Amino acid sequence: MPASSNTLASIDTPAAIVSLPQMRHNIQRMQDQANALGVRFRPHVKTTKCAQVVQAQGAAGAQGVTVSTLKEAEQFFAQGVQDILYAVGMVPQRLPQVMALRRQGCKLAIITDNAVVAQAIADFGRQHGEAFEVLIEIDTDGHRSGIKPDEDALLQVGQILHQGGMQLAGLLTHAGSSYELHTPEALAALAEQERAGCVYAAERLRAVGLPCTVVSVGSTPTALEAKNLEGVTELRAGVYVFFDLVMHNVGVCTTDEIALTVLTTVIGHQADKGWAIVDAGWMAMSRDRGTAKQQQDFGYGQVCTLDGTPLPGFLMGSANQEQGIISRSTGAPDADIATRLPVGTRLRILPNHACATGAQFPEYQALDEDGTLQTWGRFHGW
Amino acid sequence: MPASSNTLASIDTPAAIVSLPQMRHNIQRMQDQANALGVRFRPHVKTTKCAQVVQAQGAAGAQGVTVSTLKEAEQFFAQGVQDILYAVGMVPQRLPQVMALRRQGCKLAIITDNAVVAQAIADFGRQHGEAFEVLIEIDTDGHRSGIKPDEDALLQVGQILHQGGMQLAGLLTHAGSSYELHTPEALAALAEQERAGCVYAAERLRAVGLPCTVVSVGSTPTALEAKNLEGVTELRAGVYVFFDLVMHNVGVCTTDEIALTVLTTVIGHQADKGWAIVDAGWMAMSRDRGTAKQQQDFGYGQVCTLDGTPLPGFLMGSANQEQGIISRSTGAPDADIATRLPVGTRLRILPNHACATGAQFPEYQALDEDGTLQTWGRFHGW
Repeated sequence: MPASSNTLASIDTPAAIVSLPQMRHNIQRMQDQANALGVRFRPHVKTTKCAQVVQAQGAAGAQGVTVSTLKEAEQFFAQGVQDILYAVGMVPQRLPQVMALRRQGCKLAIITDNAVVAQAIADFGRQHGEAFEVLIEIDTDGHRSGIKPDEDALLQVGQILHQGGMQLAGLLTHAGSSYELHTPEALAALAEQERAGCVYAAERLRAVGLPCTVVSVGSTPTALEAKNLEGVTELRAGVYVFFDLVMHNVGVCTTDEIALTVLTTVIGHQADKGWAIVDAGWMAMSRDRGTAKQQQDFGYGQVCTLDGTPLPGFLMGSANQEQGIISRSTGAPDADIATRLPVGTRLRILPNHACATGAQFPEYQALDEDGTLQTWGRFHGW
Repeated sequence: MPASSNTLASIDTPAAIVSLPQMRHNIQRMQDQANALGVRFRPHVKTTKCAQVVQAQGAAGAQGVTVSTLKEAEQFFAQGVQDILYAVGMVPQRLPQVMALRRQGCKLAIITDNAVVAQAIADFGRQHGEAFEVLIEIDTDGHRSGIKPDEDALLQVGQILHQGGMQLAGLLTHAGSSYELHTPEALAALAEQERAGCVYAAERLRAVGLPCTVVSVGSTPTALEAKNLEGVTELRAGVYVFFDLVMHNVGVCTTDEIALTVLTTVIGHQADKGWAIVDAGWMAMSRDRGTAKQQQDFGYGQVCTLDGTPLPGFLMGSANQEQGIISRSTGAPDADIATRLPVGTRLRILPNHACATGAQFPEYQALDEDGTLQTWGRFHGW
């Protein structure tokens, strides 16, 4: 059988299905938002680690990519992406790997939030004649790493890099706490906090004569709800390309917009409990239970029919490694489960977190409007 | 550099480290237990999906393997394992794949817990002249799938298979609810429930003249705490080979016996919060938070020094995709975190769940007593 004759009814399960109409819609929506706000858009490719997805983002107008590992940088550079931002704090031991990529022609920028590493970058760079391009990581919401916009360390790190002969490109922040919100007003306020904090930090650098060209902000929720990005040059987001149930609960997508589902097959029942057992467990869905602490807990995922329509009230309520348990979210057993979902029935499960679920699969099955499937590889590990 | 000169200090992070002295000890402990109880031991290879680990289990006396996917069956058969039990409920669509493996010489057994699939197996088998070897799945603890020992369906499924010309090999059960217990007494009682239920079901089959040679039971906790396996022929367990913090909380291992750790590097700090940021996040640890509902919650893992010694009170308290946050478990900030764990410090993190953490890595680094590392591949996906 040629690959193009594969369908949702014929391929082996479990499988990670990417619905292309939804994916294209999501890509266009974010690009339109960046265009409307007058900033470049640099997608975070850690969500998909997939060449075809990144090509579609680039075709829609994205400029460069953001990566979370140097393996991602190497893979996407090999696939022709030149402009790469490695957005996880640099450690000195990785400088030779960064230098090797830069000397192959990759415009690879790195980040740091501390003076020790900044000094190590400057020392290594001077020693090897390499003017690394560096952004300083700013903490605008207390969520993770970064220097607060008003801290002395900001100017100290900037001076170490600049006086050390490195290319101090600018600043970057990520308001990861946006995942904990769920109203447009709160998200817009956090987007403004992210913008204002990063722009203030940029002004402090410039006031002492340090260069700061790039002001890079973003997370999917703040990117979509930002009203104004004055002073910002670049927006970043990752999970928007697929969306997921966590993003649905945050309020930035509907379930209809979720592009990633896990295709699975019913393998048995516990009729007295109202359970259908499927061949996708936590190995397929991932252990991500991100909706557990949100206003609507979807268990391991929302059950949909083969065409992607949600079956209201049916969740993957629990999971073993290779088996999921489908049941009513109310806990009331469905006495008709074995006739409603007989053995062999194929279902699609909307995931809690697209980044985590995608990583469980060596490849995606890209589903086009005509029902054909294409296999898209994705890479794994470090 | 030749591979053998790699050490914990030189390899890239994050990395999945398998400590060989602990692994060998764990393998011997379980094999001794099976030998003492007079049963065969068939390891579940879903934990490691790694040829070298399975070779070590076989060398210690294991007979055959248990798999959770047909990909595992194909991979291990290609590596020379002949005797394979696919211990996830069969679906009719997979019968051609099973038949193909059997016709290559693989002694591949399958399981079912319902009459619809049993009939489909018999029909397909007769049609193709293949007498599939089938075990009936028994539910002895209400945890997942299987027929209860006293249900009518047991004899019905047995008769469909036997009269349909299939090889009805026997019964299998898995007391997965053992993970919810934490005393030797409760585990011994559940092991006895698992044994007694499966043996009773075997007697029912034999009483009506159906064959039942294999009586297969097991989960790591019940396998280790069983006092008597009279009537059982085969024991199965998977995670015992590495152990993890969930098993520590269940009470069947000490932290010193855990063979799997994630090697990571400190990349920054939030000194005012008492945080060290490391380059292993949830992508490396997995999203498994299995200790969250146990008596001791280890966050995303227990922090150890490079030699594997736990740093009491230091956990990976939270995690982003590629960054973990190391902090005191008490929540009281460690004012000395940046001097205690400076940038570049290498740590090892004990995982909640070895099956989930291992699956995040394309390979293990096997650490021998002399400090040398060997790369052991593992496979991924379906």
